[in-house]
Amino acid sequence: MKIDVNADMGEGFGVYQLCDDAALMQVVSSANIACGFHAGDPSIMTKMVRLAKHRGVSIGAHPGLPDRLGFGRKEMAFSHDEICQQVIYQIGALQAIARTEGVSVSHVSFHAAMGNMINRDETLAQQVMLAIYRLDPALIIFCQADTIIERAAQRVGLPSLPLFLADRACDATGRLVPRGAPGAVITEEDAVRSRVRQFLQQGTITTVEGHSLAVRARSILVHSDTPGSLRLAQIVRSEIEACGAVVAPATHVLQ
Amino acid sequence: MKIDVNADMGEGFGVYQLCDDAALMQVVSSANIACGFHAGDPSIMTKMVRLAKHRGVSIGAHPGLPDRLGFGRKEMAFSHDEICQQVIYQIGALQAIARTEGVSVSHVSFHAAMGNMINRDETLAQQVMLAIYRLDPALIIFCQADTIIERAAQRVGLPSLPLFLADRACDATGRLVPRGAPGAVITEEDAVRSRVRQFLQQGTITTVEGHSLAVRARSILVHSDTPGSLRLAQIVRSEIEACGAVVAPATHVLQ
Amino acid sequence: MKIDVNADMGEGFGVYQLCDDAALMQVVSSANIACGFHAGDPSIMTKMVRLAKHRGVSIGAHPGLPDRLGFGRKEMAFSHDEICQQVIYQIGALQAIARTEGVSVSHVSFHAAMGNMINRDETLAQQVMLAIYRLDPALIIFCQADTIIERAAQRVGLPSLPLFLADRACDATGRLVPRGAPGAVITEEDAVRSRVRQFLQQGTITTVEGHSLAVRARSILVHSDTPGSLRLAQIVRSEIEACGAVVAPATHVLQ
Amino acid sequence: MKIDVNADMGEGFGVYQLCDDAALMQVVSSANIACGFHAGDPSIMTKMVRLAKHRGVSIGAHPGLPDRLGFGRKEMAFSHDEICQQVIYQIGALQAIARTEGVSVSHVSFHAAMGNMINRDETLAQQVMLAIYRLDPALIIFCQADTIIERAAQRVGLPSLPLFLADRACDATGRLVPRGAPGAVITEEDAVRSRVRQFLQQGTITTVEGHSLAVRARSILVHSDTPGSLRLAQIVRSEIEACGAVVAPATHVLQ
Repeated sequence: MKIDVNADMGEGFGVYQLCDDAALMQVVSSANIACGFHAGDPSIMTKMVRLAKHRGVSIGAHPGLPDRLGFGRKEMAFSHDEICQQVIYQIGALQAIARTEGVSVSHVSFHAAMGNMINRDETLAQQVMLAIYRLDPALIIFCQADTIIERAAQRVGLPSLPLFLADRACDATGRLVPRGAPGAVITEEDAVRSRVRQFLQQGTITTVEGHSLAVRARSILVHSDTPGSLRLAQIVRSEIEACGAVVAPATHVLQ
Repeated sequence: MKIDVNADMGEGFGVYQLCDDAALMQVVSSANIACGFHAGDPSIMTKMVRLAKHRGVSIGAHPGLPDRLGFGRKEMAFSHDEICQQVIYQIGALQAIARTEGVSVSHVSFHAAMGNMINRDETLAQQVMLAIYRLDPALIIFCQADTIIERAAQRVGLPSLPLFLADRACDATGRLVPRGAPGAVITEEDAVRSRVRQFLQQGTITTVEGHSLAVRARSILVHSDTPGSLRLAQIVRSEIEACGAVVAPATHVLQ
Repeated sequence: MKIDVNADMGEGFGVYQLCDDAALMQVVSSANIACGFHAGDPSIMTKMVRLAKHRGVSIGAHPGLPDRLGFGRKEMAFSHDEICQQVIYQIGALQAIARTEGVSVSHVSFHAAMGNMINRDETLAQQVMLAIYRLDPALIIFCQADTIIERAAQRVGLPSLPLFLADRACDATGRLVPRGAPGAVITEEDAVRSRVRQFLQQGTITTVEGHSLAVRARSILVHSDTPGSLRLAQIVRSEIEACGAVVAPATHVLQ
Repeated sequence: MKIDVNADMGEGFGVYQLCDDAALMQVVSSANIACGFHAGDPSIMTKMVRLAKHRGVSIGAHPGLPDRLGFGRKEMAFSHDEICQQVIYQIGALQAIARTEGVSVSHVSFHAAMGNMINRDETLAQQVMLAIYRLDPALIIFCQADTIIERAAQRVGLPSLPLFLADRACDATGRLVPRGAPGAVITEEDAVRSRVRQFLQQGTITTVEGHSLAVRARSILVHSDTPGSLRLAQIVRSEIEACGAVVAPATHVLQ
């Protein structure tokens, strides 16, 4: 069984760094690279592309809202057209950097507020997916299973890859428990390991209510902007390998 | 005889507009579109691409330094790598917008300080042209004849298109008279017309010293950020047509 | 009778200009100067302060959200603390420029989305007014009559100056008719003149429903970011003078 | 003997942090707070002011060039007027935040490229110091001894406080050895301790050539943007106290 491990990367800016990207690049199989709006700049993007190329990691665009101060976490009332244009602009910038380095962009993973806005509005999701399809119909859309984004991608004919969050609890409906709520974030190493194992071996998670729930996912997302993210990623990867599964980039997983 | 007329466009930002882009788009055959660093944003870029597509105008990238406050007119001590990365990022962003709209980017024209920096440094020019070549070897480089940029483009195998500035005086060496100097900028309608005619019919200009000098150019650049720029562009175009020449986009001129 | 005429000014950025500030400065008695977040920069602010000083115009801060691309017109989910800090930062920047030029800031007028957010949330309004009071208890708050902002200013002890909008229609409750609605914006010269006259002579407006409604206002706001704004301002001023009233800056009006 | 210890602080931006400001604030007696141009934002500035107030640390403005991407380290060809306006804007923003928190700004320390530009140009230095004097004649200018900045401050009547750099080598002329050169940066704990001791007890440093050179300084600058900066600051402070000197803020040192 092949499974992808992905993380958001290159989310620094100028002198600032958010995580140890070089170390994390040795653990993931797909890198979602910030594209200069909520974070990142041409130099950091180029550095990420080179690291990814060197490690055989799949390169993805991680577009966000144009808000560095708020790190793209605040929703902003852009029109559908504006959101589409921002998405295309950012993917294109990364594509050009990748092409100049002799590689290509294979997936898209939306950042924070931009992702939330698209995932709540079917019309917007449809328009964004159509624009991405026109840009490159092979781009794989990273998303949660059974969401507006996944359905819109499928409708327009874009491949999609459903995500599993190793460090976040779900409720009986399969939805993430909000960050503030008790038990929402799983930080204990053993708990993370056993969730990964259960997911790989049985295709299920245990919800906060204690029930088993089927999970459809092909990639495990590890958060990179939290303390201990590198360690968490290493745990996830080692547990995958301990289970006899193979860590492989998104493009291989979908083949 | 085919001759291109080009102008820098889409150099507004958010609510700001620098010139009447829609009107100017009806006069030029090639549009150098700002790419979001010194000016422009994804929405304006998209609007420009749509206007250009509608009018059959060639689409070019107009990359600049990341300095909105100074409109990319101040040189900044970026490394060669950083300049390259900024150029590629910006071209790529515009390419993606163009592709999504069903057209493509055919040329590159550097803005202000970024252009001056590249045109003064052979190593930098070589590196930038190589990067652009790797991105797309068909991109036409707009530049003055016999400059570091033109030679670097030719060396790496990129097509180039030499420019004629209808509203700027040259000295005996063919160099532009600096903006501050007397007679540097030609604003009188008759003078502009006679310069265009002399260039088209005899392939020469009259220098500030009063001598005739051969000019090698295939495109006339009309400045768009000065008052009266639209009128100037219209004069240039009407004089071209009065001379029996044909206004044609860069891609056609080079065929 | 003394009445103030105010407008938002210095809302350009770098090479961009939004209106003819120098001409408008000859018509208004109070200038609300953008402070570098939604628009404006230190150079434009200094130019505005010098023009205002030269013309005897009252200087006000016009703070907005940190969003140049959207011109501060989009609401953003900042915390109350963050909004307060942004307000104080911007007023302080203008105060320093004014002090260096030998004048002082006498009022505050909130821009667009920032104003809407403060005017909808009593707790936020209270916190912002307290912060402004701590900064300078003599700062006059420009606002609509009978609003959350006016009441909060009065509660903390800040002077306030209620506004009359010469070019916007009101309904029977005194609220502005939304911009999109028919008749919301009054552009005809005679209509503007008669509204100003009625307000000055009878203290009333005619609502969109055709009824007369009492208006409590001491300053007329002229929009500066619309075409024809300079002409509108001149009409308002000439009508005030034709009515025998005196145009005077906010500080004089409140004496 | 009283000696000040100062560091640049609040040089993060949004989610980014450059050093452990809260820990460093417990070691210094003067904090040079970034003002939102090269780094910092209203929230971070407010947090720094509160920390400084709580610890009795002197508050200083640390203005820089408007270049977040380059962290204000690249010189930019601003006019003298523009530099002045940027300095005043930034100091004013911090003054307002401080005043709202019930404290005041007592000094100014220029950041990187802005400082270098001012310190190389007597006319610019004079103009900047005059502007600062007009804003507040009690503001203490932090600078190296015998520099253009110090002389300009003295000429206009601004107090100045000469700095000692505990971790940087000097040559026989008293100038800093450039960062790239061997031995330029002193990182070994014992070396830093002995330099501080020699400075405090004998008022001298040993130059890279091995000679003793008199040093006139009243404050020790500890860099905050390098790894180990907190440890370095603690070493400096403990050595000062071991020498029987008293760490005191700039305002006390100058009394």
